[in-house]
Amino acid sequence: MGKTFLEITEIKEVEAIIARIATEVAGTRAKTGTYVEKVRVAEALGRVVATDIFSALNVPPFDRATMDGFAVVASDTFYADEDNPSRLIIRGYISAGEFSSHAVESGYCTSIATGAPLPRGANAVVQLENTSEFTEVVEGEEKKKVKVYKPVAPAENIMLAGSDIKQGERIVRSGTTLMPRETGVLAACGINEVLVHKKPTVALISTGNELVAPGEDLEPAKIYDVNAQTLSDSVRDSGCTPIFLGIAHDSLEEISEKLKKSLEIGPDVIITSGGTSAGVGDLLPRMIGELGEILVHGVDIKPGKPFIFGTLQGKPIFGLPGNPTSALITFNLFVAPLLRTISGIPAQNHGERVKKKSIKAKAAVRIFSEPGRNEYVLVNLVPVRERGKETFLAYPLLTGSGAITTLSKADGYLFMAKGKEITEEGEIVDVELLTEIPNRYDRA
Amino acid sequence: MGKTFLEITEIKEVEAIIARIATEVAGTRAKTGTYVEKVRVAEALGRVVATDIFSALNVPPFDRATMDGFAVVASDTFYADEDNPSRLIIRGYISAGEFSSHAVESGYCTSIATGAPLPRGANAVVQLENTSEFTEVVEGEEKKKVKVYKPVAPAENIMLAGSDIKQGERIVRSGTTLMPRETGVLAACGINEVLVHKKPTVALISTGNELVAPGEDLEPAKIYDVNAQTLSDSVRDSGCTPIFLGIAHDSLEEISEKLKKSLEIGPDVIITSGGTSAGVGDLLPRMIGELGEILVHGVDIKPGKPFIFGTLQGKPIFGLPGNPTSALITFNLFVAPLLRTISGIPAQNHGERVKKKSIKAKAAVRIFSEPGRNEYVLVNLVPVRERGKETFLAYPLLTGSGAITTLSKADGYLFMAKGKEITEEGEIVDVELLTEIPNRYDRA
Repeated sequence: MGKTFLEITEIKEVEAIIARIATEVAGTRAKTGTYVEKVRVAEALGRVVATDIFSALNVPPFDRATMDGFAVVASDTFYADEDNPSRLIIRGYISAGEFSSHAVESGYCTSIATGAPLPRGANAVVQLENTSEFTEVVEGEEKKKVKVYKPVAPAENIMLAGSDIKQGERIVRSGTTLMPRETGVLAACGINEVLVHKKPTVALISTGNELVAPGEDLEPAKIYDVNAQTLSDSVRDSGCTPIFLGIAHDSLEEISEKLKKSLEIGPDVIITSGGTSAGVGDLLPRMIGELGEILVHGVDIKPGKPFIFGTLQGKPIFGLPGNPTSALITFNLFVAPLLRTISGIPAQNHGERVKKKSIKAKAAVRIFSEPGRNEYVLVNLVPVRERGKETFLAYPLLTGSGAITTLSKADGYLFMAKGKEITEEGEIVDVELLTEIPNRYDRA
Repeated sequence: MGKTFLEITEIKEVEAIIARIATEVAGTRAKTGTYVEKVRVAEALGRVVATDIFSALNVPPFDRATMDGFAVVASDTFYADEDNPSRLIIRGYISAGEFSSHAVESGYCTSIATGAPLPRGANAVVQLENTSEFTEVVEGEEKKKVKVYKPVAPAENIMLAGSDIKQGERIVRSGTTLMPRETGVLAACGINEVLVHKKPTVALISTGNELVAPGEDLEPAKIYDVNAQTLSDSVRDSGCTPIFLGIAHDSLEEISEKLKKSLEIGPDVIITSGGTSAGVGDLLPRMIGELGEILVHGVDIKPGKPFIFGTLQGKPIFGLPGNPTSALITFNLFVAPLLRTISGIPAQNHGERVKKKSIKAKAAVRIFSEPGRNEYVLVNLVPVRERGKETFLAYPLLTGSGAITTLSKADGYLFMAKGKEITEEGEIVDVELLTEIPNRYDRA
């Protein structure tokens, strides 16, 4: 039982080391230029745009009626009211999608549908509701005419060409994650293909003699591997593609074989889980140290102390603890920010505006933390109404045992920094959500 | 310009009519039994489970050490302290994934690793930190022994078999949308396949003479079709599969051809956009009325008044207004709840616990609504800190023109019911979010 003592690094320093490597990797990806691809906008939801995108046209491309009614010269309607309507001769009808050859001049108007282009000469649209049609015989000829009961100002009920989007205007910034709001703007500009960052690929390795893959027979003393599933889902959740390489038993041969295999397939990041704590004979850190470089082994947090970070042929490698809770918390703390950076998302976009990754809650009971440790406490959130306002009560979950049901009850975690040993009942706490509000951008 | 006057239905009644049809369709899907499929858990994120799922095994399957240390008979350690440690003979070592043939009896112990099964006879684990090993010669033979400095109670540092999940326990309820928390539990129980509801398919048709598909050339008087993109994304966002059938011009032939084509491919739901308002000659409602039944034409809301709902050969059909803002708001109000129901999600799960689909915000300015109308006002949310608390200011967006940039700035909408014509600056309002917190469960 070769016991190793971890060199504990402070969490801030760990974050700085990882951020430095993330920036390096993102820089390399940007330089080589092979990490971008063209995709159809119809399939681009959730992808990160690799260039600024500009509109090649005005939106709308022409002055457009926003109401059904009559295209007029606005001054013809001034002073019109119920008792003294303006009377105009109707010349033709323009429906949406059509241009009219008629021009409108003083004394005339054109019947127009919502969305149709304004005819030449007209500078406003009178709403249908404020008019009535009639027929008048003028010089022996029957003329269709309209009474206008309300004046319109120039440009009223019109959307001017380019007033929505101007030709040449930047419509999407490089680094934006495409959401429906952006894809709609792209569509409006007629853009159906975009250059996006390729999704980073992440090789996943589970380590441990006791692990069996779900679906296989469970021999005595074995348990099913949970991390392959939860970490794959977390990788997807971060907009990246997981590649699970299977389970390595606690032997130098198997671990080194999996690490070499992961280098062969050339992922952007490698994640192992298990085998990081002192008890299992230090095989994983030894192999990472041999094949690459260890930058961190041990962080001053609980759970997640035996966390490893390093590089393997220039690729970031994370050694997460085997306990599913510790693995998930260290993933959220350390892996997710790196994945965001190498996905092409600029730092200032990491926490997006309305993306409430963290919410306020009230401690439901007194919560204790281990003295002298930076502790992350998993909590279950229960919505309650208090004096008419909706709030959440945070119940702490016992995490030591590594129970999977604990993890499945957890909505998020709160942080109790070294020195803060008690959170009082009723205290307002920040809860980092583990599962964001679930969307479903999966496509069959 | 065949003007039709809409029969305005109240929003509550519209919701009731749609809910009734949704329940009928969900019932038919459930009865035929062809609307479920088996998928691998690794690909099941975001899918809706079609049966209750039970665990076939105990988790953990055996009494499991949660610490590195020594498996002991707890009573052997009672009264031990720094000055008077208990002394036990060490018999073997059990690592994770192995069973020991050794049994532990009083006076003996077995060295054990985190995750390893407890040997017969032992009922607790002493933490390594509270022990020290030494060697003693007993009857001429060298014996490995350990001093225990701290007592343990029975079951201490052990996770009992089945204490996490009991054999036969229900682990996932029918109707649950699978999130990482559930897939982790499934993995722990060794389950790698699940029965889920097939994703509902939604046929989408854009109508309008003025529309051109993005990527094609824009002729005069035409504009690019935005709704095909935004509604496809909204359908995906609701966990369903969109099938875009293209643009129908405003002719009976083209509209009827698209409607018939949509019936041929057999989607679960049909959505059209455009052609619902009175100005365009009533072609769409006429065709729906001919081929099926119109249940709603006109709702007392703004925007979205010329909304259509009906059935076509038993399939729900929605006629959404062509204005992208109106289309999106009516999608959220009326289509999304129906899609959730026919996806197999029980009504009580529609708004999930932490899923904050609506948030509180403060009106940034005075907001006016049209007298006598139920109005939905698009707002842009700006996060601010006030007296140390984070809150959002809601700025109203002008929506009348149908500008796509307005829609792209909108984070959500607030509701001003008939009779409420003014929301005062600083008033607390509920904002329904248009884009939920964006996740990325898309898979390459």
